[in-house]
Amino acid sequence: MNILVLNCGSSSVKYKLIDVDTKATLAEGGIEKIGLPDSFIKFKLADGSKKVVNDPIPDHHKAINDILNLLVSPEYGCIKSLKEIDAVGHRVVHGGEKFNSSVRIDNEVIEKIKECYAVAPLHNPANMIGIEAITELIPDVPQVGVFDTAFHQTMPAEAYMYALPYELYEKYAIRRYGFHGTSHRYVSRRACEFLNLDPKTQKVITCHIGNGGSITAVLNGKSVDTSMGLTPVEGLMMGTRVGDVDPGALTFIEDKEHLDSNQLSNLLNKKCGLLGVSGVSSDMRDIDAAISAGNERARLALDMYIYRIIKYVGAYVAALNGVDVIAFTGGVGENQVQLRKRVCDHLSYLGLKIDDNVNSVSRGEEKLISTPDSKVKVVVIPTDEELMIAKDTEAIVNGLQPE
Amino acid sequence: MNILVLNCGSSSVKYKLIDVDTKATLAEGGIEKIGLPDSFIKFKLADGSKKVVNDPIPDHHKAINDILNLLVSPEYGCIKSLKEIDAVGHRVVHGGEKFNSSVRIDNEVIEKIKECYAVAPLHNPANMIGIEAITELIPDVPQVGVFDTAFHQTMPAEAYMYALPYELYEKYAIRRYGFHGTSHRYVSRRACEFLNLDPKTQKVITCHIGNGGSITAVLNGKSVDTSMGLTPVEGLMMGTRVGDVDPGALTFIEDKEHLDSNQLSNLLNKKCGLLGVSGVSSDMRDIDAAISAGNERARLALDMYIYRIIKYVGAYVAALNGVDVIAFTGGVGENQVQLRKRVCDHLSYLGLKIDDNVNSVSRGEEKLISTPDSKVKVVVIPTDEELMIAKDTEAIVNGLQPE
Repeated sequence: MNILVLNCGSSSVKYKLIDVDTKATLAEGGIEKIGLPDSFIKFKLADGSKKVVNDPIPDHHKAINDILNLLVSPEYGCIKSLKEIDAVGHRVVHGGEKFNSSVRIDNEVIEKIKECYAVAPLHNPANMIGIEAITELIPDVPQVGVFDTAFHQTMPAEAYMYALPYELYEKYAIRRYGFHGTSHRYVSRRACEFLNLDPKTQKVITCHIGNGGSITAVLNGKSVDTSMGLTPVEGLMMGTRVGDVDPGALTFIEDKEHLDSNQLSNLLNKKCGLLGVSGVSSDMRDIDAAISAGNERARLALDMYIYRIIKYVGAYVAALNGVDVIAFTGGVGENQVQLRKRVCDHLSYLGLKIDDNVNSVSRGEEKLISTPDSKVKVVVIPTDEELMIAKDTEAIVNGLQPE
Repeated sequence: MNILVLNCGSSSVKYKLIDVDTKATLAEGGIEKIGLPDSFIKFKLADGSKKVVNDPIPDHHKAINDILNLLVSPEYGCIKSLKEIDAVGHRVVHGGEKFNSSVRIDNEVIEKIKECYAVAPLHNPANMIGIEAITELIPDVPQVGVFDTAFHQTMPAEAYMYALPYELYEKYAIRRYGFHGTSHRYVSRRACEFLNLDPKTQKVITCHIGNGGSITAVLNGKSVDTSMGLTPVEGLMMGTRVGDVDPGALTFIEDKEHLDSNQLSNLLNKKCGLLGVSGVSSDMRDIDAAISAGNERARLALDMYIYRIIKYVGAYVAALNGVDVIAFTGGVGENQVQLRKRVCDHLSYLGLKIDDNVNSVSRGEEKLISTPDSKVKVVVIPTDEELMIAKDTEAIVNGLQPE
């Protein structure tokens, strides 16, 4: 069964065509800078090389049309006809309290996704444009929505409620939702599978550390707490997002700098994190290079970034009253050897021991990096949200419950 | 040596006259609702009973004058002349980055305290009025400032910096300062003394849980992290303060509710926490009563309150890479048996065991509440900020370094 996985952002569309039976990726690529004069489509060729075609792409509808044409093109295509696409799985960012698992998209679901626009004003409308474009272009193909928030709907109220006036929860559904749910779900299960453990009896902490980052406490297969909140700004220090900060500091800044809520939101999302502290870059590779060149603010930024991961892991060990498995994933988590070492060395009170030799050569591949006698197993698990979306889509199209 | 300890708030002045040689409290009381028609002075009599005298008190100057008169009054006084006051120790809330320990107050110190008005606009001006009133009324008596923030000045940069643009730190000194420092200092040292441990070799976590609350990680006698920040709004859920919350939720609320930064600040300080979630009260005793009466939102509020304590303790155990002693203090921490039990039961992964029989009868007194075989010692230590202020004042007046 061939599943087209779509991830529509506000100015981009990423796609992957997956044969779920073999788990093979038949095609993948993306369109970026939609609506700008220098928009382009980038895709992988059969030999693994990448091709970029500059092309004015005014909107998401045209973008998805171009992707479909590319999939069946005689020169670059991998299928002969669009009929070989059995279903489309959409990444949808915010499912609010309305979705606790993936669902087949119908009119009712579309209405509910639209009801979540208020809490995800940038993401959900873009996701919806993708759904509408597919409906128009290949109307007979079933579509499934896979929500970033769904995995975290099992959190207990003491973890998802903020200590704000209760009326704000009733009026606007302000609460912690969490994001990266598809990644945390995939990685927490795959980590157990990889270690031959039953996920239903394990305490797992998944560290999704990339440009955005979040950490999740998973008890017996279910998310019980996660570091992102109503929005993806809360929690860890990120590339450009502030993460946790004194609420009193925010009103102080608004007051002193004469910012309104939009301007503050822009600052917290775009000008903070690694970029804001270092003044160098939001990218960890640039931070590493700056540290090597003796940049003290880059070093401070990295120290803060790591320290917050340590504190979140510690908090979730307490929330779980112990931990069996810690999994690192995401661009940084899968590749930044020193970060993993520094986090793990700070957790030796748990009887956790990292194997430095194994850790130092583990990049972007599944690997056990703790020692045999470590009381906590530490693994690197490259995330695969697209595969998870494809598998959910397959299950739902076949009338089954997703895993 | 008799030390008058003064704690001037925006509409109140609390006082305590302490003989530091014997640690005896010679007199204590306070004036509340300064500037309001129903202002009053309340003080303890020699037999331990309390007396309240209604009296219009228009300002802090008159308040402190009344206190001094009371101390020497033939009917209620404990000293014959103001000359028996050897020094005055002032609680000063915010010392910014300017004070890392208590200091004798002189003109230079006064200027520095005033420079901290921006970060403590409600508290520091009130503290200053107290200093000025004493200077005027008993000019020859030496005065000492003891700062709520000073103990936390040993935090490393990765703990005190926010992931905001670095320029905001340079421009406004926006960073974590922490509060309750005098309490955390007293309790962390007293806990070790009580347990016959050398504070210079211990990992201690102090939980100051009252109407306001903060938790501090103390490594070898020095604060290395604390839950309050630039302001006392950050961290734990409190009586009316929100504690940690998604920064993105705050800009969302401002936007939806059309609040400016002052209105939001008021909401976060006064309408959140136990009060905001329960809708019942900011007082833990009222919350307990409401839970007994079956109030579900009160139960939720307590669950959240406890859960956050658990997460902070867990985070700081990781920050310290282990913990030797956990100390509970503050109105709630010293008295709320169930809260201590629920927190400790969640920390059994540390080999921590609480003695339920001892814990259940320990209220407001120094007590070891963990079992003999517990790997972490858990103690209740009633805080005594006034004694700490008096001892610092004595040391400085005698030309010594405070402890």
